[in-house]
Amino acid sequence: MEQETAPRVIDGAGGRSDRKRRAILAAATDLFLQHGYLGTNMDDVAARAVVSKQTVYKQFTSKEALFIAIVGGMTGAAGDEVQREIGELGEKNDPEVQLLVYAERQLIVVLTPRLMQLRRLIIGEASRFPELGRALYEGGPGRAVAGLAIALARWTERGLLAIEDPKAAASHLNWLIMGDPVNRAMMLGDEAIPGRAALRRHAADGVRVFLAAYGKPGASTTK
Amino acid sequence: MEQETAPRVIDGAGGRSDRKRRAILAAATDLFLQHGYLGTNMDDVAARAVVSKQTVYKQFTSKEALFIAIVGGMTGAAGDEVQREIGELGEKNDPEVQLLVYAERQLIVVLTPRLMQLRRLIIGEASRFPELGRALYEGGPGRAVAGLAIALARWTERGLLAIEDPKAAASHLNWLIMGDPVNRAMMLGDEAIPGRAALRRHAADGVRVFLAAYGKPGASTTK
Repeated sequence: MEQETAPRVIDGAGGRSDRKRRAILAAATDLFLQHGYLGTNMDDVAARAVVSKQTVYKQFTSKEALFIAIVGGMTGAAGDEVQREIGELGEKNDPEVQLLVYAERQLIVVLTPRLMQLRRLIIGEASRFPELGRALYEGGPGRAVAGLAIALARWTERGLLAIEDPKAAASHLNWLIMGDPVNRAMMLGDEAIPGRAALRRHAADGVRVFLAAYGKPGASTTK
Repeated sequence: MEQETAPRVIDGAGGRSDRKRRAILAAATDLFLQHGYLGTNMDDVAARAVVSKQTVYKQFTSKEALFIAIVGGMTGAAGDEVQREIGELGEKNDPEVQLLVYAERQLIVVLTPRLMQLRRLIIGEASRFPELGRALYEGGPGRAVAGLAIALARWTERGLLAIEDPKAAASHLNWLIMGDPVNRAMMLGDEAIPGRAALRRHAADGVRVFLAAYGKPGASTTK
């Protein structure tokens, strides 16, 4: 979406078209989260966005394409926030401190009612609409583990961690951190999302277990 | 269900009633997994079980009660199998070997298409029907973590592990083992369930990470 903004504004028609696109996405997100995937149709989306049904179809060729754009947008924004500094992470000298900051941010960014609602909705429809599940996986845990693996590999190269299989290690850290709170929220609902202090303790616990297995003895970076 | 069998058989009417109950449960399970919770009604269940609708309501007061009985039955059977020896686990002398056996069994028992389908279905409906989500949580990860925590506490008492908070440690092990494969199956579908050899390697990896954090230095029990 973002890369389309500039050229469209230049040709003079893009401003309005972009506004409509954003209105459709916002309306559709509300409707999908409220009524589910099957319970939402393109007429309702058009009515709520105050655009014609033709405009909805011009922007998004199908309900599935519209939903995938929403999944991409929501998981993309969350992933960008989680991985804000992922590129430089492996160049920093204090993996323990960095992993703590990373884990806490990941918990806070991912454990929001809207993302949990989206995740529940997609999981419920994953057998019928495998593309939705794939978009969530790739934008969610798939991306998180891949990004983290790069930092872990770099720290190992630099002698700060001792990891043979960075992707497996990244997956271990990911699920030590996300496993309990996300799965609890999946089943017990948004009220089961822990508060900040509990998330901070949970992050510290998970990183400690991770470093016991993958930290380099004697290379601890905590003060 | 099981405890109802004996007295009913004695009074002479139970045999048929139990058969009907089982037929209703089997029919309803198929329908729920195929059409979802909202897409299934009691008429369809009665027709498929070849009983009257009154019989369905006599056995189960509502669709929700029927569904919760199914969740209880399926998660209960899986949990019984996972926790087969959980009571004696902490009395054994080789936590590493025991945890490996436990983890591998848990992966094999839980990662079946039917349980994954049930889990997706419940997660998709968890906001609308919180009772379903609670039944899954309590019969699933809640029970697994509680059972494991008892064994971990006992091993710590006996000086074989070094664990301050057995419930937190049990949750760490649970998600090191279950996090990746279950969440992958939730999003990517039943085809993402790994084969036995991959599950065995995954279990060994998770237990290794767990024991690096919680094992007692020098008390390793592997040969």
